[in-house]
Amino acid sequence: MKSADLLLLGASQVVTLDGGRAAAKRGADEMNDLRVITDGGVAVRRGKIVDVGTTNHITSTWRGLKRIHCRGRTILPGFVDAHTHPVFARARENEFAMRCRGKDYEEILAAGGGIHASARAVREAELDTLVAGVSARLDRMLVHGTVAAEAKSGYGLTTESELKSLRAIRRAAARHPMTVARTFLGAHVVPEEYTRDRKGYVELVIKEMLPRVAKQKLAAFCDVFVERGAFSVPEARAILLAGRRLGLRPKVHADQFRDRGGARLAAEVKAISVEHADATRRSGMRALAEAGVIPVLLPSASLFTGLKHVPNARALIAEGCAVALATDFNPGTSPTENLLLVASLGCSLLQMTPEEVVTAITRNAAAATGLADSHGRIAAGRPAHLVVLDAPSYEHLPYRMGTNLVWRVLIDGQLVADRGRVVRSPTR
Amino acid sequence: MKSADLLLLGASQVVTLDGGRAAAKRGADEMNDLRVITDGGVAVRRGKIVDVGTTNHITSTWRGLKRIHCRGRTILPGFVDAHTHPVFARARENEFAMRCRGKDYEEILAAGGGIHASARAVREAELDTLVAGVSARLDRMLVHGTVAAEAKSGYGLTTESELKSLRAIRRAAARHPMTVARTFLGAHVVPEEYTRDRKGYVELVIKEMLPRVAKQKLAAFCDVFVERGAFSVPEARAILLAGRRLGLRPKVHADQFRDRGGARLAAEVKAISVEHADATRRSGMRALAEAGVIPVLLPSASLFTGLKHVPNARALIAEGCAVALATDFNPGTSPTENLLLVASLGCSLLQMTPEEVVTAITRNAAAATGLADSHGRIAAGRPAHLVVLDAPSYEHLPYRMGTNLVWRVLIDGQLVADRGRVVRSPTR
Repeated sequence: MKSADLLLLGASQVVTLDGGRAAAKRGADEMNDLRVITDGGVAVRRGKIVDVGTTNHITSTWRGLKRIHCRGRTILPGFVDAHTHPVFARARENEFAMRCRGKDYEEILAAGGGIHASARAVREAELDTLVAGVSARLDRMLVHGTVAAEAKSGYGLTTESELKSLRAIRRAAARHPMTVARTFLGAHVVPEEYTRDRKGYVELVIKEMLPRVAKQKLAAFCDVFVERGAFSVPEARAILLAGRRLGLRPKVHADQFRDRGGARLAAEVKAISVEHADATRRSGMRALAEAGVIPVLLPSASLFTGLKHVPNARALIAEGCAVALATDFNPGTSPTENLLLVASLGCSLLQMTPEEVVTAITRNAAAATGLADSHGRIAAGRPAHLVVLDAPSYEHLPYRMGTNLVWRVLIDGQLVADRGRVVRSPTR
Repeated sequence: MKSADLLLLGASQVVTLDGGRAAAKRGADEMNDLRVITDGGVAVRRGKIVDVGTTNHITSTWRGLKRIHCRGRTILPGFVDAHTHPVFARARENEFAMRCRGKDYEEILAAGGGIHASARAVREAELDTLVAGVSARLDRMLVHGTVAAEAKSGYGLTTESELKSLRAIRRAAARHPMTVARTFLGAHVVPEEYTRDRKGYVELVIKEMLPRVAKQKLAAFCDVFVERGAFSVPEARAILLAGRRLGLRPKVHADQFRDRGGARLAAEVKAISVEHADATRRSGMRALAEAGVIPVLLPSASLFTGLKHVPNARALIAEGCAVALATDFNPGTSPTENLLLVASLGCSLLQMTPEEVVTAITRNAAAATGLADSHGRIAAGRPAHLVVLDAPSYEHLPYRMGTNLVWRVLIDGQLVADRGRVVRSPTR
């Protein structure tokens, strides 16, 4: 008998998502292949998975001091939220109410709302205030099974406030069990004060913000919002290439409202992911598939803004893309940290299968976040980042729409959330 | 100083929904009028609300042994779920997966799924099994702020199994803090064994089931599903009038897929509510408004089944109806107990305002469930059924889509749920 620290035993299913060498699973064949062990268990030693198999295999091979009995429950890799905007100083429920009364986005902007409202608040906010906000949002992600997230700046839009935003993420994450990958999104929109000098703002991003972000190692990724009212393809290309020269891997917010060539740009600059892709045409989808760019689809934003723009997941999968799903958590168009709800919407709004949505919030989301080596699957040798669902099969995850089925969450083999509440470790 | 048992103090908002004599609020003017007290409190004595007002007023008038500080939080009337089907023996996540793969409802029925699958399982189930299932579902409702629900039979479709279903609801509710109003829905569909003898089944419902339901006081309401594949308007009329003669108030599942005159029938038989109303035409809406029938809209079922049928809430409100929203909780087309998510969908899918959706899950839902006297508003003299949201205003309720914002739930002044967990009372 070999010795482990912790055994999870008797789960109805262990959904490993293992197998295959590529970081992400591409197309319907791979995305539907979850590698499920029935009546399964996991052995953990020093924070790592040391074995996965049937309960019989685990109990006959390992003895462990601690045991978690998972009867009637399902073990999955911890979820990864591949696209979030958690640094803001004020909720925007008032704008939401305006939209419900029929005001459109332009009218809300004109009334001082939208991203510009967030920018004013973030610029004024103390770092500590921002850190507290990010921490609370990470906690809510965690109790919904999210063990790692990508987190963007982009509500500051000045050099200082963008750096402050990235520092807020870094500081909140340093005290939190979740892994957080930081993305610099200084090119979210052109701020109000540069409305008549777009070129000046693009230069500010390239010549001042990006070098400081890189020097202070504040971000792993550089993202640009390619859209009318935001940035053109040439502007975005210049910013993304400048970031890439400084070691920041490109991401692109593209084709949310119309296909403006953002997906093709993402393929051209070898972005790790393309975000939204609601309006991407077939040619853009093929370019993404060929370049191995992961489309990160955001159905809760589609729903929250009234379903005017919904990504074509079936076509992206048919073209051979490795699709991920994320919350797009942000105060304007997707104020939810609940990745299980997003998975449900993947089925009901995007016609994805339960297997595809599970792949999309685990293995493919990990790849889109640069965490393919540590997150997104259950296999010996990998860190023990695990979610236990209070349901007998993974199909319940999207089926039980809007119910937080997460029973327990483990990061590095440590219990970090238990039925809706964060478990604080005394050593953390 | 007067003496109370419990004071809730310092809430950012107390949303009373008080004012007006009618049971429900009708049309946009009334539904948008929430009667909000800023920096408010509530005094409770012997399970009843004895005062509502500003924190200053409450603290200068009442002393209370127990105090709950609600700073930054919002007090609302406990939610009422006006339409649920909680008696079933098996989840149907497998059918959901089939639908995701493109199978339609007819194919699933042909594969032995749908309501008939539920009927087989309910007929075989022991009463205790059904009771345990209902209890667990009531618990999940409760932690999402639901203090009262309507609950239907309708997955048995034999006399014995329909009576068993209603008994299961009664027994689960007797041990549970929630108030549960029972509805007999023997006429949900024609069961398989009566496919060639529809008339025989309608007779069974009228001559055998209804009299026994009435005699044993197993239900307050009688509901019929009017739809192709279910019951015609003449069949439904006969059943509803038979129920009414026995003291069961009519409810009608109508116009889910097409306007078959179900709404007009609801008006004709003076139903308390009409359910779904997705396809109801203007003439039907006017009939509902004139007769004071409450449309209970079910947007999570619309979403879960792919948005092919979505009710026109704006037109119903414009015609002067008092609209309610409910989960339609059931294993086939809406497996969620989360009424906050339904409120969000009321905004994003049905273009309702935050005020309207709050009215629709409180005062109007109470009226649709026959609980207008005890539920749905906060006023002196009424039972203290209260929800405290962990958010500074009611607008957050629909805005924070898919987040369970419920901090605490009180029924008759007793704490029954606390941040996602049911609080068991030793005396209950």
